[in-house]
Amino acid sequence: MAELVEVKLAELGITLPEPARPIATYVPYVVTGDLVAISGQLPLLAGKVSVTGKLGATVPLEQGQQAAQRCFINLLAQLKEACGGDLDRVRRVVRLGGFIACVPEFTRHAEVMNGASDLAMAVFGELGRHARTTVGVPSLPLDAAVEVEGLFEIA
Amino acid sequence: MAELVEVKLAELGITLPEPARPIATYVPYVVTGDLVAISGQLPLLAGKVSVTGKLGATVPLEQGQQAAQRCFINLLAQLKEACGGDLDRVRRVVRLGGFIACVPEFTRHAEVMNGASDLAMAVFGELGRHARTTVGVPSLPLDAAVEVEGLFEIA
Amino acid sequence: MAELVEVKLAELGITLPEPARPIATYVPYVVTGDLVAISGQLPLLAGKVSVTGKLGATVPLEQGQQAAQRCFINLLAQLKEACGGDLDRVRRVVRLGGFIACVPEFTRHAEVMNGASDLAMAVFGELGRHARTTVGVPSLPLDAAVEVEGLFEIA
Repeated sequence: MAELVEVKLAELGITLPEPARPIATYVPYVVTGDLVAISGQLPLLAGKVSVTGKLGATVPLEQGQQAAQRCFINLLAQLKEACGGDLDRVRRVVRLGGFIACVPEFTRHAEVMNGASDLAMAVFGELGRHARTTVGVPSLPLDAAVEVEGLFEIA
Repeated sequence: MAELVEVKLAELGITLPEPARPIATYVPYVVTGDLVAISGQLPLLAGKVSVTGKLGATVPLEQGQQAAQRCFINLLAQLKEACGGDLDRVRRVVRLGGFIACVPEFTRHAEVMNGASDLAMAVFGELGRHARTTVGVPSLPLDAAVEVEGLFEIA
Repeated sequence: MAELVEVKLAELGITLPEPARPIATYVPYVVTGDLVAISGQLPLLAGKVSVTGKLGATVPLEQGQQAAQRCFINLLAQLKEACGGDLDRVRRVVRLGGFIACVPEFTRHAEVMNGASDLAMAVFGELGRHARTTVGVPSLPLDAAVEVEGLFEIA
């Protein structure tokens, strides 16, 4: 059987990275029942935070969206490992939590987070329709511009 | 059988709005097993954010509480849809997450969030007793003063 | 049978406090299925917030770590009550959420939160390996420097 999600990823031109090791004393994901809770992912690319700074100041909207997209790609890399390599076991993207580093005047958090949400839909289709909470924060670990955590249901 | 929660809502003088459409590419709620994860709700009223600004600056405490209450009413509207219209299927308000837009000096987040928690108790009684996390944030989508997300158990 | 977790706590020199009463209208934890959702805990010690202020300003890194550790001890006190007194019923620390009150320039959130994560590993061993999300916030209830919430699986 074709690996449908992997085919979709290839169509989108997305290569999953090696799942990032946590920067501290915890693990990237925990499976409990049929749920996978994945640790907050930073926009790491080749081992470095690819977008640092704050929305509304040094980080333009589009770059924030790319950061959110990168966070979701990193979530996918963890999720694939949680699924023993088979992303077709994913039954639902249940919830994404988005944290946007920004100045107090910033109000376009939702648009930033769409970088992650749009990709979830593109990769998983109907199964990618998720609940979501997006908020601003004054700062994130390693000066990352965006952090996204995820909850998934798998078979 | 009387619809007990609806009767309670009527007693409290609360009319549930049309569930708000997400302001971005996601869905208002996801059901997984017997849990319903509901997206962070803003204090929308008649399609507009009813309370904008920050606690400790332009938003007085009481107005913040009203915003939290409004967020919970909007959670209820989504929850009702998730229950196929029957709020008596709710077995437990499991967890509320409250995000309070505020200045760094603000310390009364818990009192603001009680606007949501008190209403949960009033509507659901013992089943409304929930776990809760309340934190400050520098800003929220659309300049909302408060955002509340919810996790519920349904039958 | 020896109470293994209690023995480990004794070895670590940790005495669990009386579980803190919520500072508002909610409950400390909710059990749903085999999951326990525990409300965000402040670094309360003998009824007072033991570490107030912000990382990157008045609170040094080490004190922030102690605050995170104290939050986790308070989570344990609630968890013990949720388990009817028997911490050996804990099957997994599923997820910790850490909120670090800090100035916008702060970037060492992960190190602060390790105060909680390291203790989870020390107390529960392999079962203590958890998913984690850590973010900065401008302020927390009662001016606490750190707040930690937890999700646990129990038998």
